[in-house]
Amino acid sequence: MKKLVLAYSGGLDTSYCAVSLSKAGYEVHAVSVNTGGFTAEEIQNIEKNAYKMGVSTYKNIDAIASYYEKVIKYLIFGNVLKNNSYPLSVSAERIIQAIEIIEYAKSIDAKYIAHGSTGAGNDQVRFDMIFQTLAPEIEIITPIRDNKLSRQEEIDYLKSYKIDMPWDKAKYSINKGLWGTSVGGEETLTSEKSLPESAYPSQLENKGETQVKLTFLKGEFVVFNGVKNSPEKNIELLNNLASSYAIGRDIHVGDTIVGIKGRVGFEAAAALITIKAHHLLEKHTLTKWQLQHKEYLSNFYGMHLHEGQYLDPVLRNMEAFFESSQENVSGDVMVTLKPYHFTLNGIVSDHDLMNAKFGSYGEMNKGWTAAEAKGFIKIIGNQNKIYHQVNSES
Amino acid sequence: MKKLVLAYSGGLDTSYCAVSLSKAGYEVHAVSVNTGGFTAEEIQNIEKNAYKMGVSTYKNIDAIASYYEKVIKYLIFGNVLKNNSYPLSVSAERIIQAIEIIEYAKSIDAKYIAHGSTGAGNDQVRFDMIFQTLAPEIEIITPIRDNKLSRQEEIDYLKSYKIDMPWDKAKYSINKGLWGTSVGGEETLTSEKSLPESAYPSQLENKGETQVKLTFLKGEFVVFNGVKNSPEKNIELLNNLASSYAIGRDIHVGDTIVGIKGRVGFEAAAALITIKAHHLLEKHTLTKWQLQHKEYLSNFYGMHLHEGQYLDPVLRNMEAFFESSQENVSGDVMVTLKPYHFTLNGIVSDHDLMNAKFGSYGEMNKGWTAAEAKGFIKIIGNQNKIYHQVNSES
Amino acid sequence: MKKLVLAYSGGLDTSYCAVSLSKAGYEVHAVSVNTGGFTAEEIQNIEKNAYKMGVSTYKNIDAIASYYEKVIKYLIFGNVLKNNSYPLSVSAERIIQAIEIIEYAKSIDAKYIAHGSTGAGNDQVRFDMIFQTLAPEIEIITPIRDNKLSRQEEIDYLKSYKIDMPWDKAKYSINKGLWGTSVGGEETLTSEKSLPESAYPSQLENKGETQVKLTFLKGEFVVFNGVKNSPEKNIELLNNLASSYAIGRDIHVGDTIVGIKGRVGFEAAAALITIKAHHLLEKHTLTKWQLQHKEYLSNFYGMHLHEGQYLDPVLRNMEAFFESSQENVSGDVMVTLKPYHFTLNGIVSDHDLMNAKFGSYGEMNKGWTAAEAKGFIKIIGNQNKIYHQVNSES
Amino acid sequence: MKKLVLAYSGGLDTSYCAVSLSKAGYEVHAVSVNTGGFTAEEIQNIEKNAYKMGVSTYKNIDAIASYYEKVIKYLIFGNVLKNNSYPLSVSAERIIQAIEIIEYAKSIDAKYIAHGSTGAGNDQVRFDMIFQTLAPEIEIITPIRDNKLSRQEEIDYLKSYKIDMPWDKAKYSINKGLWGTSVGGEETLTSEKSLPESAYPSQLENKGETQVKLTFLKGEFVVFNGVKNSPEKNIELLNNLASSYAIGRDIHVGDTIVGIKGRVGFEAAAALITIKAHHLLEKHTLTKWQLQHKEYLSNFYGMHLHEGQYLDPVLRNMEAFFESSQENVSGDVMVTLKPYHFTLNGIVSDHDLMNAKFGSYGEMNKGWTAAEAKGFIKIIGNQNKIYHQVNSES
Repeated sequence: MKKLVLAYSGGLDTSYCAVSLSKAGYEVHAVSVNTGGFTAEEIQNIEKNAYKMGVSTYKNIDAIASYYEKVIKYLIFGNVLKNNSYPLSVSAERIIQAIEIIEYAKSIDAKYIAHGSTGAGNDQVRFDMIFQTLAPEIEIITPIRDNKLSRQEEIDYLKSYKIDMPWDKAKYSINKGLWGTSVGGEETLTSEKSLPESAYPSQLENKGETQVKLTFLKGEFVVFNGVKNSPEKNIELLNNLASSYAIGRDIHVGDTIVGIKGRVGFEAAAALITIKAHHLLEKHTLTKWQLQHKEYLSNFYGMHLHEGQYLDPVLRNMEAFFESSQENVSGDVMVTLKPYHFTLNGIVSDHDLMNAKFGSYGEMNKGWTAAEAKGFIKIIGNQNKIYHQVNSES
Repeated sequence: MKKLVLAYSGGLDTSYCAVSLSKAGYEVHAVSVNTGGFTAEEIQNIEKNAYKMGVSTYKNIDAIASYYEKVIKYLIFGNVLKNNSYPLSVSAERIIQAIEIIEYAKSIDAKYIAHGSTGAGNDQVRFDMIFQTLAPEIEIITPIRDNKLSRQEEIDYLKSYKIDMPWDKAKYSINKGLWGTSVGGEETLTSEKSLPESAYPSQLENKGETQVKLTFLKGEFVVFNGVKNSPEKNIELLNNLASSYAIGRDIHVGDTIVGIKGRVGFEAAAALITIKAHHLLEKHTLTKWQLQHKEYLSNFYGMHLHEGQYLDPVLRNMEAFFESSQENVSGDVMVTLKPYHFTLNGIVSDHDLMNAKFGSYGEMNKGWTAAEAKGFIKIIGNQNKIYHQVNSES
Repeated sequence: MKKLVLAYSGGLDTSYCAVSLSKAGYEVHAVSVNTGGFTAEEIQNIEKNAYKMGVSTYKNIDAIASYYEKVIKYLIFGNVLKNNSYPLSVSAERIIQAIEIIEYAKSIDAKYIAHGSTGAGNDQVRFDMIFQTLAPEIEIITPIRDNKLSRQEEIDYLKSYKIDMPWDKAKYSINKGLWGTSVGGEETLTSEKSLPESAYPSQLENKGETQVKLTFLKGEFVVFNGVKNSPEKNIELLNNLASSYAIGRDIHVGDTIVGIKGRVGFEAAAALITIKAHHLLEKHTLTKWQLQHKEYLSNFYGMHLHEGQYLDPVLRNMEAFFESSQENVSGDVMVTLKPYHFTLNGIVSDHDLMNAKFGSYGEMNKGWTAAEAKGFIKIIGNQNKIYHQVNSES
Repeated sequence: MKKLVLAYSGGLDTSYCAVSLSKAGYEVHAVSVNTGGFTAEEIQNIEKNAYKMGVSTYKNIDAIASYYEKVIKYLIFGNVLKNNSYPLSVSAERIIQAIEIIEYAKSIDAKYIAHGSTGAGNDQVRFDMIFQTLAPEIEIITPIRDNKLSRQEEIDYLKSYKIDMPWDKAKYSINKGLWGTSVGGEETLTSEKSLPESAYPSQLENKGETQVKLTFLKGEFVVFNGVKNSPEKNIELLNNLASSYAIGRDIHVGDTIVGIKGRVGFEAAAALITIKAHHLLEKHTLTKWQLQHKEYLSNFYGMHLHEGQYLDPVLRNMEAFFESSQENVSGDVMVTLKPYHFTLNGIVSDHDLMNAKFGSYGEMNKGWTAAEAKGFIKIIGNQNKIYHQVNSES
């Protein structure tokens, strides 16, 4: 029989895929990949429904640790925020989901792999790119993209097989994961409207403020408020707390891989706080040129990742740079959480280059004399001086 | 007599310069340059005091328009925020002040030029670099840097000439200008402490929220809330309003030109809102590659400007790029001001590339077929596919 | 009748297009675009043959001046050599050809436009990208790509219509233009073989050596050996001379737009000499940062141009940067031509920043004292010193 | 006694230092560092002379292997040619010399370190930067820089101590090392004159041509003409052979660290051939984005190294990127040596991405259909199409 692995989330599209592919004679192995968006209860539900759709097997892969290790870690090292605002929550998730699913497909010798993406967006590219690169021998099947069915047609199709579930279209389509939650709705289809507060899954619960401490070791978020844990756990804990302050909301406007502009709301409290805290620690511990060149690489790392080019070996090369740059990025960062926003208060680090021993900015200086400063300025200004003299004379 | 122009602000350091240089036989022409930090009343005061210090002439140069035209405009075009947070308020001001002062010195045939910077920081570099480049024939005199006097020694010296003014050292040293106000104090000399609310000149006065509209024409902020004005006036108006929401506060940590790390608080409500609003408009109107390459140039533009390299002709070249990129950056940006923070709501622009006519992200797509999308993905994935196949085989 | 413009070169592929499209009921308007590859006699021949193929009209567009003005000028300003060796001769030509042809099609209200590229390479992308962007309303027809005919099938088809010409496949496929000539053959389909000398259209005729002088004005090559001419004419004259020394041969290995690697021989004597001479002049007249940032932009300008993204507005922005950077790139460059290679001898320029007046490298120095040099080094080394001290202690 | 380490080369300047420092009461430990420029015989001579100058001890450090391992390796990985021509021979040597000397000084507990550089050039910066960073506790002594003596004054001084050697000033000052030989003379002090053939240490000896094969393993030059050896030995062997063809001569024009422009001749046959051969292998084995981003980093790696910033940790981060990028840069490169120039013939590599199996450029294509190519072009052209449509309408 034709063994097929289906990337399955339990929504209408992938349910349609499960049923129609089973009916079409495939042996369907449904797989969901948890990148931090599902509770144990939700997974049980997904499983139960999967079997209703006629799949042969169902498996949930817990990919949170590998998600952190393969992607999020480097997004933090690089302080990657697409277009200076979006932590690439969805892009990053899709990469890991695709990798986990294709590895699973190879492990059970599947000949086919299916996903429920449409032909309009980024996800199809990310899935296909990873699939075709890691397993060119496995055929990709995409019923939703190929058939361009409307939601109603899908519902009717399922009903015809006695599958009648409450497929209400939520007013906002939500994608939740460890690194953030995206929110799409009628407002994000326009350029001018913002999302109403109620569209965000997390709501303001705390009106006071609280200080938290993030401790980094070689760039990794290893201790939260004095308690050691895996970085992915610390991110989760920080997110739970900070989301209750409604922190981290924004709307991302960006270029899709297919060339059109897209707009999507998101809330990503932990991602934003972790990146900004990490960046502050870097400002104290890295040299000027490390900061400058990291910025160049980060901007491109984000672009390539976003565009599904995760398997381009240049990303491994950039990761080697990032890893190397984190040698001394260790210390505490103090952050205050407030309603809708947060402030970075300061850092403590053994590797802090801002050290009064070597002179303090704006204070009377101990490290060099006035004459030395004048020598410095004279020579560092040489080229501009020559340039202007030569070119005003000529 | 030895004609000398003194960059004069009326503070203790430049007062000491005025007196001691006059006593030393220079004909002192005091000049202050207003880049948005002084009120008419303050200027009158500065003038009155200048003459008490024995200067031959005093002149205030209103440089707000040239400040905008020569620097701020390009900082907005480039969305320049040093280390992703600081609008370079002080750096940018010093450049213009230095240019205005040296041009004045040349116009009156001065043989000497003096400033009150110490040998510890950035300002001496910015002043000297501009002076020595634009007028290598004029000698630079820097009493404070050369003599390393303490405040008390300066005060005592002035008293010895019967100049006894209330030179109280303010708890926080404040530098105010059109593009932001810096705040230094004992906390900013540490790495871990944040500034108390009271340290900021602007205090929270509005607890509600209000929506404002910034209209850009070819990248310039030409209309504020429907009223046309010069961009520099719009910035001032926006700043007045947004400061009453205590927006735009942060602490900048950065690399000084002399190689040490420095930390300084700032409030720059209009700068941050204008840049973020402008950047949002660009995300809608520029191509992916315009955004990407602008980012590279902006990061370096900020670095060079910060380091006093304003007269390096490469900045003119970058400005030509920026200017060219603004061709279609026109439209309205809606922003909501709230206590301590603001949100970007959306934009309206005739040049918006996010246009439903060409397909909407995440929606059923009109611009291309599933087969075309598959062809696209197949070919755009070619190189990674080949790379992995070649290198897994070998 | 269905009006169609055909990009016509007179070769087998476009002859097949001419006949088959005419037979299919299109009113075929054949257009060739001369970017420096055709002599007047060749054009007459092309015209004669075009009418044999049944076209309604034939037109040759002389695009040499616009080729220089729109593309080559900026390739020189940017010293653009793809992968540090290839002057992008073919890529640049295709852009201009596509633009000229689509503008012509619009001017005669054609509803269709056809080209003879296959589906394997870069040219189809360049043509289609320009066509679909500048005239989305005109339908693109590509018989060779669509039908995947073999040469023999095309010849047989033409014979069936009594068109029997000597369509010998040359051993090497040659593409000649103002900015270089490409040479493909069985060797370039391998990775290890070089082209035999005989494969190159130009052969070594001069065994001695000769010195030439290129004079640039604001980056443009305006005088050759003391004689003023248009830059495109100077390039042609230099090419004729330098080709007789067999200068400028190499094999380019690069990434095609479709993701595979490609290899192609070329000879581009004038392009290489002009770029290297221009670059040398820049090393004398531009600041360090101008050279550095130009390099970044040039590498991307080359990539985007090569990939057919000529109409991305970011290229206009880069051109504005380049133009601005050429302000002082004026002077003479002396070059010696020798068999197979050339040497750059030196430059003379009023804008030369290497001017003994300001100190000579390696000589006893006049511009600053030992103490000043030591002050400079002390302070410029500050950050590394602090970094190592902080991190060796911790 | 005051223990001092002197960077000693046996030339007039360092001889003067040796004598005058000994006379001034220092216990002088002379050290020469061989980076490929000295023969065993020359070292014996240097030693003999050192003792004549009154030094307490003399030591030659053979640094060829560490020179390769710490610097040259990365210059090859990065294909680093400053301003696209100069392999940074001298800059790279100075770094290693400085590191070896300061490490030696620390190992013998010296309190002082001396070098013979003037205050005019780059070398003083490189020496001081490394010294002050790695051993801020050791005082730097620079008699030549401080005293600004003329050659004659130095000679007279030495004579006064009965040291009378033939200190003829050679017409050309030569600096020889593993990675190249620099040649300075009266011509290089001008902008327009080239060096005469006789100025170059290596002269044309072979008028025919010969093919050589360089074999790289993970980017390192491990086999030369089929014989395995250390990379530094292979470089030496290649250099000996290629120099007899007078290959690798050029004049470098560049920015000194002190802001003036400098010009210096060089011959660096092995450096140029190795870099160009390595780069060719990379064009076959790296992805487009690896090539592009390596270029960015290489340009800055070269700049920082040239400017003595070798100890900035960002260079270690870049080296991590480079190292990671070399994973598959393995294979043979065939090069033909000819009088004054060389040609790269081709490569053979198991990691070659140009592999007929995946389609050949310009040939009929096997990897995708015409329809897929059209889908690709349609979508990859989307943004430009939208941009032009939106902006031609508005």
